[in-house]
Amino acid sequence: MADRAAIVGAGLAGSLLALFLARRGHRVEVFERRGDPRAIGCEEGRSINLGLSARGIRALRLAGLWERVRAVSVPMRGRMVHPPSGPPFFQPYGRDPGQILYSIRRDALSSILIDQAEKQPDVRFFFDAQVSGIDRESPALTVSGRGRVEADFVVGADGVSSLVRRAVPGGVRTDVLEWGYKELHLPETDRPQALHVWPGEGALMVAHPNLDGSLTCTAFLPHDVIAALPGCRAIEAFFDRVLPGARELVPDLAGQFAAAPAGQLTTVRATSWHHADRLVLVGDACHAVYPFYGQGMNSSLEDCVVLEECLARHPGDRLAAFADYQRLRKPHTDVLADLSADNFLELRDRLRSPLHLARKHADVVLNRLFPRHWQPLYTMISHTTMPYGQALRRARRQDAVLRAAAGAGLLAGAALVMRGRAART
Amino acid sequence: MADRAAIVGAGLAGSLLALFLARRGHRVEVFERRGDPRAIGCEEGRSINLGLSARGIRALRLAGLWERVRAVSVPMRGRMVHPPSGPPFFQPYGRDPGQILYSIRRDALSSILIDQAEKQPDVRFFFDAQVSGIDRESPALTVSGRGRVEADFVVGADGVSSLVRRAVPGGVRTDVLEWGYKELHLPETDRPQALHVWPGEGALMVAHPNLDGSLTCTAFLPHDVIAALPGCRAIEAFFDRVLPGARELVPDLAGQFAAAPAGQLTTVRATSWHHADRLVLVGDACHAVYPFYGQGMNSSLEDCVVLEECLARHPGDRLAAFADYQRLRKPHTDVLADLSADNFLELRDRLRSPLHLARKHADVVLNRLFPRHWQPLYTMISHTTMPYGQALRRARRQDAVLRAAAGAGLLAGAALVMRGRAART
Repeated sequence: MADRAAIVGAGLAGSLLALFLARRGHRVEVFERRGDPRAIGCEEGRSINLGLSARGIRALRLAGLWERVRAVSVPMRGRMVHPPSGPPFFQPYGRDPGQILYSIRRDALSSILIDQAEKQPDVRFFFDAQVSGIDRESPALTVSGRGRVEADFVVGADGVSSLVRRAVPGGVRTDVLEWGYKELHLPETDRPQALHVWPGEGALMVAHPNLDGSLTCTAFLPHDVIAALPGCRAIEAFFDRVLPGARELVPDLAGQFAAAPAGQLTTVRATSWHHADRLVLVGDACHAVYPFYGQGMNSSLEDCVVLEECLARHPGDRLAAFADYQRLRKPHTDVLADLSADNFLELRDRLRSPLHLARKHADVVLNRLFPRHWQPLYTMISHTTMPYGQALRRARRQDAVLRAAAGAGLLAGAALVMRGRAART
Repeated sequence: MADRAAIVGAGLAGSLLALFLARRGHRVEVFERRGDPRAIGCEEGRSINLGLSARGIRALRLAGLWERVRAVSVPMRGRMVHPPSGPPFFQPYGRDPGQILYSIRRDALSSILIDQAEKQPDVRFFFDAQVSGIDRESPALTVSGRGRVEADFVVGADGVSSLVRRAVPGGVRTDVLEWGYKELHLPETDRPQALHVWPGEGALMVAHPNLDGSLTCTAFLPHDVIAALPGCRAIEAFFDRVLPGARELVPDLAGQFAAAPAGQLTTVRATSWHHADRLVLVGDACHAVYPFYGQGMNSSLEDCVVLEECLARHPGDRLAAFADYQRLRKPHTDVLADLSADNFLELRDRLRSPLHLARKHADVVLNRLFPRHWQPLYTMISHTTMPYGQALRRARRQDAVLRAAAGAGLLAGAALVMRGRAART
């Protein structure tokens, strides 16, 4: 008889994995505490728009879904930066026309994944089904309205506050950022299809385009500032100070801001991704990251690909497959967590530093000169499927070359000065 | 009218702070979700025994309680190490007869603190009173059975999973260690009054003496090992392998082990310790640490002293007092969190490293030679009230001297060898 898989969470990773596991012949049941996204749309307080990049696209291609997903997403060919003063400017993502991000609504992507998974024989989704207990030894779940559900193995695709993770013996490091976010909505506009960024002084706003021409905005700012903005006038004054122009963009900005729930940004690093051959974790449950590298969803979808490959490599030996999955994947998502936290600091502090911009510029120029041998870190993370850790190592080598070149330049300059002096004396 | 303080949590820090605040003329109400420890004793799953050292003792002296506490504690003049092979050996804590730790039961200390706080006018304790909501602006609490309770300020002394912390806008880093613990009980014994340590291979056992001659043991081991020890025979085999001799010490070790709940070890670092002049955090709520430096309780009691000093320094300006408290205290508890995590690695990995032991030995010898100028880090942390960060800086300076001396020794040795060679040629 085929192994029975119980998946906790019908989010993006849970649904994609249901599809992959069903294809491998498993009987799959998916339990989701929320309602069916095809009926209710997006839940408030979760990020509504996401940016698909190479890793997510590859996973969707493997699922045979990329063309369907692409049809309902908006291509973003670059970043439109709106500086506090001066005109906006456009930064293309790369010189290669394939280096595009795709903006998609979470509920649209989720619905496509669930639809496709449900078409497989032996896949069943249960919505409004709260899992309240996990027996890690049987294993089995306690599910609201269904009692005890047994399985051969349990997949925890249940996000940042994963219940399955708590049943996996091990440690976990959690970082809740001191900044939070609120989502706002900008009506239809003729702005270019790009990821819009408003770097502010003590705040940051990012917007994803929607199919109807509207933009979904995310305002990032410190939690204590959010808490200290009680009334509309305080909110307006704050935005006028840190993000001048935002009020003209977002109609009723203060009202929308006051009404939106404040979201938390969390990094999760679980030390153990599986328990024996019975429990295994994917996505935010084992490695949530800050959104500042745009890789949260992409890395979760990539997890499913890696886990599927490991299962294929070890037929009949789930323990070896799970162990291999953790060994192959965790070092890279650890790197991603660090990069995503670094990018927050970059967006917050360094976006205006001349040295930093010069360094970025050198990266772009070198990429144009040596497109195959020199790739900026951002390009490797977003536009390739090279493992995260390998991308970081390559970027570090490139950095060392740049630093050496800068050092050599300084030395050469100093030598010229000395020679000039020597010639004068 | 005196300011009304609402304290969430009647643990050690909450009770001591109630006493300090009442003395400063505040009206104090303390809400505790557990029952009264004077009636029910210790709750299962929490560490039953604690080691009081200089910082905790100083706080209790300021509360006028030290002599009462000392009367019910057991002095520990050093560490009795039980190596896997070979006889046990005793390491005194210091050459100074004052360098003693005191083992005390949590419920005994807690009862003394609550008794004393309740003697103050205008202090009331409410037990079995669950706080379910916090209005950070009024501020006010929602308390089971009592409805809305207003106050001028709220103190979060509600531990690792603090609800008050969640109401303070800011970030938090949480680390749950991949090792957990179980408490075991050793009956009356004629062992010396010391902190007993059994360093094992992949496990660690520590025991605190009780007044009746019994020992309370804590076995630390990886969570996945705890989870993988289902039956008594597996438990016995495990202890025979990693802690030989433990079975002779603890009667019915396997049964006790199977029955005890597994405890988690958590580090908490909150970025914000207060919200305006309305919410403030103390103890584990803002800086839980691993127990491997024996400083969890001591640092929590010290928090109360620092907060009380800040309130005294800024009469009538609670915001300045809270801001000062965070500024003065947080850098030091951050250092403590790092030291406690390092000490876990030391206990786990380095206790048998010859180089490490040589380094420790040099520390002790130098302390004997220059008692006023050379103090091992452990001595400064446990037997002085020097701020943690200052202790670390001083230890680093001493380390640099040791390394330089070792380097000089090597050079001198090399010079001798070279000279010897030169003489021979």
